[in-house]
Formats: sequence, C-alpha cells, structure tokens
Amino acid sequence: MRKKIKNKDMNIVGQEYKSNQTKTAIKVAVAQGDGIGPEIMDATLKILKAAGANIEPEFIELGEQVYLSGNTAGIHQESWDIINRNKVILKAPITTPQGKGYKSLNVTLRKSLGLFANVRPVSALHPYIQTNFPSMDVVIVRENEEDLYAGIEHQQTQDVVQCLKLITRPGCEKIVRYAFEYAVAYGRKKVTCMVKDNIMKLTDGLFHQVFDEISVEYPGIETETQIIDIGAARLAASPERYDVIVTSNLYGDIVSDIVAEIAGSVGMAGSANIGTNVAMFEAIHGSAPDIGGLNISNPSGLINASIMMLAHLEELEVADNIKNAWLSTIEQGYHTADIYQEGISRKKVSTSEFAEMVISNLGSKPEKLPLSQLSKGAGKINIPAYLRKEKIQVLVGTDIFVNWNGSDPKEIGDKLSSINSFNMKLKMITNRGVKVYPDGMPETYCTDHWRCRFVASNSEVKSGSPVYKPVDYEQVIALLSKLHSEGVEVIKTENLYEFDGQRGFSLGQGE
Amino acid sequence: MRKKIKNKDMNIVGQEYKSNQTKTAIKVAVAQGDGIGPEIMDATLKILKAAGANIEPEFIELGEQVYLSGNTAGIHQESWDIINRNKVILKAPITTPQGKGYKSLNVTLRKSLGLFANVRPVSALHPYIQTNFPSMDVVIVRENEEDLYAGIEHQQTQDVVQCLKLITRPGCEKIVRYAFEYAVAYGRKKVTCMVKDNIMKLTDGLFHQVFDEISVEYPGIETETQIIDIGAARLAASPERYDVIVTSNLYGDIVSDIVAEIAGSVGMAGSANIGTNVAMFEAIHGSAPDIGGLNISNPSGLINASIMMLAHLEELEVADNIKNAWLSTIEQGYHTADIYQEGISRKKVSTSEFAEMVISNLGSKPEKLPLSQLSKGAGKINIPAYLRKEKIQVLVGTDIFVNWNGSDPKEIGDKLSSINSFNMKLKMITNRGVKVYPDGMPETYCTDHWRCRFVASNSEVKSGSPVYKPVDYEQVIALLSKLHSEGVEVIKTENLYEFDGQRGFSLGQGE
Repeated sequence: MRKKIKNKDMNIVGQEYKSNQTKTAIKVAVAQGDGIGPEIMDATLKILKAAGANIEPEFIELGEQVYLSGNTAGIHQESWDIINRNKVILKAPITTPQGKGYKSLNVTLRKSLGLFANVRPVSALHPYIQTNFPSMDVVIVRENEEDLYAGIEHQQTQDVVQCLKLITRPGCEKIVRYAFEYAVAYGRKKVTCMVKDNIMKLTDGLFHQVFDEISVEYPGIETETQIIDIGAARLAASPERYDVIVTSNLYGDIVSDIVAEIAGSVGMAGSANIGTNVAMFEAIHGSAPDIGGLNISNPSGLINASIMMLAHLEELEVADNIKNAWLSTIEQGYHTADIYQEGISRKKVSTSEFAEMVISNLGSKPEKLPLSQLSKGAGKINIPAYLRKEKIQVLVGTDIFVNWNGSDPKEIGDKLSSINSFNMKLKMITNRGVKVYPDGMPETYCTDHWRCRFVASNSEVKSGSPVYKPVDYEQVIALLSKLHSEGVEVIKTENLYEFDGQRGFSLGQGE
Repeated sequence: MRKKIKNKDMNIVGQEYKSNQTKTAIKVAVAQGDGIGPEIMDATLKILKAAGANIEPEFIELGEQVYLSGNTAGIHQESWDIINRNKVILKAPITTPQGKGYKSLNVTLRKSLGLFANVRPVSALHPYIQTNFPSMDVVIVRENEEDLYAGIEHQQTQDVVQCLKLITRPGCEKIVRYAFEYAVAYGRKKVTCMVKDNIMKLTDGLFHQVFDEISVEYPGIETETQIIDIGAARLAASPERYDVIVTSNLYGDIVSDIVAEIAGSVGMAGSANIGTNVAMFEAIHGSAPDIGGLNISNPSGLINASIMMLAHLEELEVADNIKNAWLSTIEQGYHTADIYQEGISRKKVSTSEFAEMVISNLGSKPEKLPLSQLSKGAGKINIPAYLRKEKIQVLVGTDIFVNWNGSDPKEIGDKLSSINSFNMKLKMITNRGVKVYPDGMPETYCTDHWRCRFVASNSEVKSGSPVYKPVDYEQVIALLSKLHSEGVEVIKTENLYEFDGQRGFSLGQGE
C-alpha cells in the first residue's frame, strides 16, 4: 500500500502556517488535489511558510473524491463559497474518474469564475533540463473563455456537424490588454499576436484589430503579428525570438503545449488563470496517480505557480526570494527523479528533500541561470471594465441553411430563386462555403448542407460592390414559413447585418 | 534589369519535351507561376524530360498577370478548361498583387476542384540541411476543404463575431481513407490522428470516430490518436516518432508548417493537393519575387512536387530515379545559395546548374540519405464514393440566439420563461457556452449574445438523463414570431435534432 498524505495532516500545516504571520495574512483557497497533488502542495506550502509569504491557506476539497461522491462537477458548494470569498486559488492537479458524465473541473472553474487569461511562462533551464533552445524565455497569454471552446455544437444533417467559434470584442480587449500590462509589469520587451485572419477575416480579424488598437497605448513595447501556422512553426524552431505571445483559446492551447515540451520538461512550469475578480494558480502537469504518495514527484510546477500567485498578490520580494532559491537548487543539482541526469545532477532527492533544499537556499541567488527580479517590475496589472461602443446595426438579409439530399445545385437554386417571399430574394447558395449557385464549378463536392443567402429584393448585389437594403425580421419569419410550406427543411439561420454601414458577414468562396 | 524567362521559351521546352516521347504521353496542366516560378519550373521540366517521364506539359497562365488584367480570381476560363481536361496540375508559386479584392488562387483551386487532401512529406536531409531531428520522416495528410476554412463568418451583435466550423462525414471519410491508402501505397507503418475531441465532442468526435471505423480495415497499419495540443507539442519536440499524420484543416495547417520549419528549410518540400478527379502538385514555398529571374533559386520544392506527381500517375520508377538523383546531388554538395553551408557544401550552384547536376546523377543512388523506393509500394490509391447511411432525424427543439445588451441573466431568463408559445418552453440560457440561467454563477461575464434553448413543453429535461419530445418546425416559426412581437431581437437559430434517438447537440457548460 502506498502511504497517502491525509488532508488532516495538511490542515495542521495550514494552521501552523497561520500562527506565525504578523501582519494580516491574505487568505488563499488551497486545493490539495489528487495523485501527487497532496505531496507537492505540502512541499510548496512549507516553502511559502519558510519564506514568510503573507498568506493563509484555507483548504477546499475538489476533484476525484468529490466526483465519486456523486457530484458530477467535482466541486461542492462550500468550496465555491470559499473561492468567492478569498478570490485566490492555489490548486494542485486533480484526477477526473474514468466514465462518462464527469465534467471537466478546470473548464468549469475557468468559465464560471470568468478566468479570462491563461498565463504560462516557460524558460529554459539548460543544461539542468536538456533543451535545443538554452536561451528560450517565453510567456504565452492565452484567451481562456471563448473561441471554439465555448463548446456549442450541433449535428444538423446526416453529413454535417458544426461547432461555433465565438470571438468577442470584450474577450479580445481583456486578453490583449492583459498581455501588454503583463509585459510592462514584468519587464518584457515584445508582444507577438498570433491569428489566422487571412482566412478568418471577421473573427481573427477582430482579435488582430483589437491588438493594433491597444498596442498604440504601449509605445515602449515592441509588437508583431503572425499567422498562427507560421507563428507556431517558428516558435517550435526558434523560441528564443519570442517574448510574450498573445492569442486566442485554441491557438493558445497548442502553442502553450509546444513551448512546455520543447523546453524539455512539462514538470517545471506553473500557470495562472486570471479573472477580473478571481485568480487561480496551478502546475501545468497532471496528477500522475501512479506515483501519488510515493514522495518522489517534482513539486517545481506548483512552486512556480505559487511564485506567480505571490507576484499577483504583489508580494514581489518573497516571490523573487523563492524563485532564486529554487533556481539555486536546480543549479546545485538536487533533482527529483523525473529530471535526474547522470553526470549533471548531484543527488536524486525526494519531493520533501527538494523542498528542504529550496528552503535552505532562501536568500541565495543562482550563479548561472537568470536571476528573478520580479520586484523590479512596474507593479500592478490593471484591466479596465469593458465599454461597449454602439454601432448602428441594420438587418440586411439572412443565411438560411437547408438540409437537402440532392446533388445538383441548380435544382435547389432554381427552386429557391422562384420564391419571392415578402420582398426577399435568393442571392446565392454555398456548400461548405464554396458558391455552387449561380455559376458553380462542376467539380465542387456537395454535402447535404446548403447555405442559402436571401437579401432584400431591391438590393443591388450583382456588381462587385453590392448595396444591401434593410430587411425587417418579419420578412425573415415570413420567408421561413413560406419555405416550410414548400417542403424546404430549414436547419438553421444566420442573420446578415451591417454595422455603421459596413458588411458584417463574409462572402462565399467564388461569390 | 533582371532577365525574366519568357513563356515563349517555356513553350519551346514543352514542345521539345513532347517530341521525344514514344508511348502516349499523359497531358499535364503546367503553371509557370511568378517570381522564381518560371526558372524553377524550367529546371524541373528539364529533369522530367531527361528522366523520360511520360508526360506532356500543356501550359496555363495564372497568377499575377491574370490578376492585374482585371480577373479577381487570377485564372482565365481557358485555364479551367485545360485543368478539367487534363486532371493533373504542376504549379509553380504565384504572386498575388497587393490590394484588396484579389481572391486567393490556391483556395479557389482547392475548393472549386474538390482537392480534399493536402499531402506534405517532410524528411530530414541532415547534415546537408541542419536540423535537430536527423531521422525525421513525416507525412502530413491534411483535410483541405472544410473546417473553419469554409470561411462562413457573421458579426451578430455589437460584441460578438462568429465563424462556423463545419466537419462532415464525407470529408472525414475521404481524408482518413486517403491517409491509410497512402500509408499502404508508400510503405508507411503508422497513422496518427490528431483531434481535440475532449472539447469538441461532436465535430472532432466525428473525425475521431471515422478514424476508428476506417482503421480496422487496415490491420497492417499501426494507429494512434492524440489531442492536437499534445500532438503538435510532441511533433515539435520529437518528430521522429511520427510517420503519417491525418488531421483536419486548421490543425493540419499548423502541423504542416511545424514539420517543414523544424526540418531546417522550407525550400525543399513539395506538396500534393488531391481530389477525386483532379490533383495539383506544388512547392510549399512562395514565389520570392525579390530574387525572381536571377537563376539563383532552389528548384528542390518543385522537383519534389513533380516526383509526387509521377507517383500519383503511377510512374513510380521514373519517380524513384529522379528522387535518387536529387538525393545524390544534395549529398554531393551541389547546393543553391539558400542551403549553401561553408564546410559542408562543395559548390554553390545556380538554379540551372543544380538541374544539370540532377540530370547527370540520373541512375545514381544516394550513399547516406535513405534511398527512394516508391516503386516497391502497393500501388494505386483508391477512394470509394461516399455512401450516406441515413439515420432517423427528429427535431426536438431549437437554440435561439438573442441580441440583448442587459447584464442580468435572470431578467432575460424570467421573461423568456414566461413565454409558453405553441408548446415550447425555455430550457436554459448560456452566454459564450456557459449556462447563466437558471442557476448561473455570479462571476460569469456576459456579452450581448444569449443562446436560449427551447424544447417541447412535454420534454422531461430536469433530470440528468433528459427525454426530449418531437417538435414541428411550425412551432419554431411560431415561437420566433412570438419572440419578435415581444421585442426580443433574434439574431440566429440552430435547430436541435436527435439522430436515431441520440442527442445531436452539446450541453451547455454547467447544464
């Protein structure tokens, strides 16, 4: 039997912890997690205590045991209460039980608490951790709430399933602002934006536009924008050329994992999930249940998360002290089994021995690895509340998506063209985004999912510069009713709007 | 003035080419492209001719000059005719002029011709091309027609812009089948599928499911599935562990660029765009107009594309002969300026000198780099026509998206709950996918974009295992009409369907 560290013991640590603070401690919700979670949290809390961090843990239970008690979200209401009271969470990795119906706790926490920014700093620790890129030092600032990860999916026909990618102006403004504020606060020089706006001109175009708008407020920070495929490739081949990267949720997910992997170990990095009111700090690795309780795991990821937490709480000198002690320990060669290398490491240490070495190094500075100097940064990060600037929104048509299992676009096109319902007319039909009516190409493969664009009958849309005319939503409803009565199976609709006279919808490929 | 190679000269090459064929030559549409295009095409065609490839070029004009003549698609109708007659295209890179309104020719060709598969083999040429991964030899098989690249985007409110990710069963079946057939035809051992189906359970779930279905037909091929973020990271850190990778359009775009970049040069690789009837072969690099006409560019990317074309045409022995001559030339150190390295290269050669060296090496075999043995593969790739298996599709509700600039979900929720229109009732409201009514979390940030799920009044949806009841589309139309009359601004709708009794839509986060 493996010896598991009990929550009871951890609470004693917490109480001891509380007892020798002098000024009023900042309460932090602490989740000890599953697998290796309790032992790396114990190690981390001992280091925080020894360094005199002005925090007081308040333990919450979440993860495996809560799931198995029948709570499909993996978190009790009392934990929510503690989180909402304390506003800061330090979280060890948790285990989600096998089986269906258990919801991702991380997704629930991020979305329910509005944790809009995922921040992951990754730097090389060469030669103590082998990497091809000894000078890499990158921070990924990833949007955390929207994009395809809103998870809104619909199967619409026999052939076609859809997921909505939602990009919002407040979402873009918050994450881009955070990236620049982070750069200033932590003495970074450059922010790189990664998007795919050559293809997704409206969604990724919005992200890019907001990046350009906000960047002008930070003249001291160098900026660049890259297409995500090229950006991810260059990041993989030469990460040294990047500093802070800001990007949307899916792209950020990919590039975050790339930087962690090419730095040589996923066991070292911490990450922050930052919201307007609440922030959560965790290691980037999982709970490794196979080695949980053996006291051989590497607490570095959670230690680095706790350092990010201290920086967030503006306890910058303590943060630097712990970081420099940790860097010194790595340099001295006291390494846990996962990073132990014959010839480079001095001694293979246990989880608790590693923590003791870090504690004994408090006050030391690394000799080769770069010194942590968070306390020389510019201070607090400030994200102003979103102010919506209203544009005039005018309905000018609708895209009606039809389920039809024929194959000749001319057949459905001619049929829909003959319908002139309440002054709306068919402009075009696309299949998977490619125009197939009128004047499609014979080689275009057609699924059973037809997007039929209807606009006002008096629109002038034949020229290269179409002029759309306003439509009333009652006309759209009447058209839907007419189509239904004609046996056309409508599966979805997307209204077409102009905003301050600018077209708010993409053209079909070939339109 | 730079000396540009004229199309006239190229036609002479083409005619000479034709003249010394014995058996009936396969006609190929050849686009000489812009910038370095004509000179690398000239080099490539000379090599094909010298190797006795049984093809006859028929030249087509597309790209810069066609755009500038006022054709916004960059391609004339006669070129379409030649392409549709010949079914095979060898294409040099083109230049799209600066300025708005010019459509991407590559996107147009791919989509209009149904080129569903983008195939990019990348292997290391170490030490002639420096790379951290001397044994990498990966083929990316990327879906080329659908996904977010359908480009269907709508701005729906002041805050929110949307792009549709469309994943189709025929699209998945074709690309996955192609990957396995490719593996068999070219003697590959393993196919890795990359998806994000832990988040996108329906769309990426479909891709994964089709991969599992088709893989059982290829028991001789090893298979694995990875989450795209982890897969991209591992690919960047250890590409040697991959063989064939199959994935959807956006992910494929990213991982294709990663492998090309970490192999050390984007100047070396060719790619194929494969359709059911038409196939196009090209270099992966651009037209480099700054060095166009100087006879210093590297024709290797296009040479490799032409080798892929010969393999596609089942001219496997000629393909092997050219590939081995090209590998020998690289080994011997005859390198163009872009890959010339002091101490490793023997001589810096021009574009045409490089082609002459490859020609003089016909019949030679590389001594260190792996021998090309395409002619030992299993032969032709066969993609059967898609057969739709109909499931029973039943409408059980609708998601109605509302533009509302309030902030309290209870206000809109209570209002919509009070509407019981034609036996439909509100089930829940989400904002960016997170449930905010009933029983939302106070910290959830809300945009002006509210997804309101309506189901049949007699549905039993309060329990963990909801039972949905059928709805008639007339009820949906009546509900839209009712909402409109109550001043609710509907921006889009997504119907909810069951397929053979299985739910065809995702739940809200927190639902």
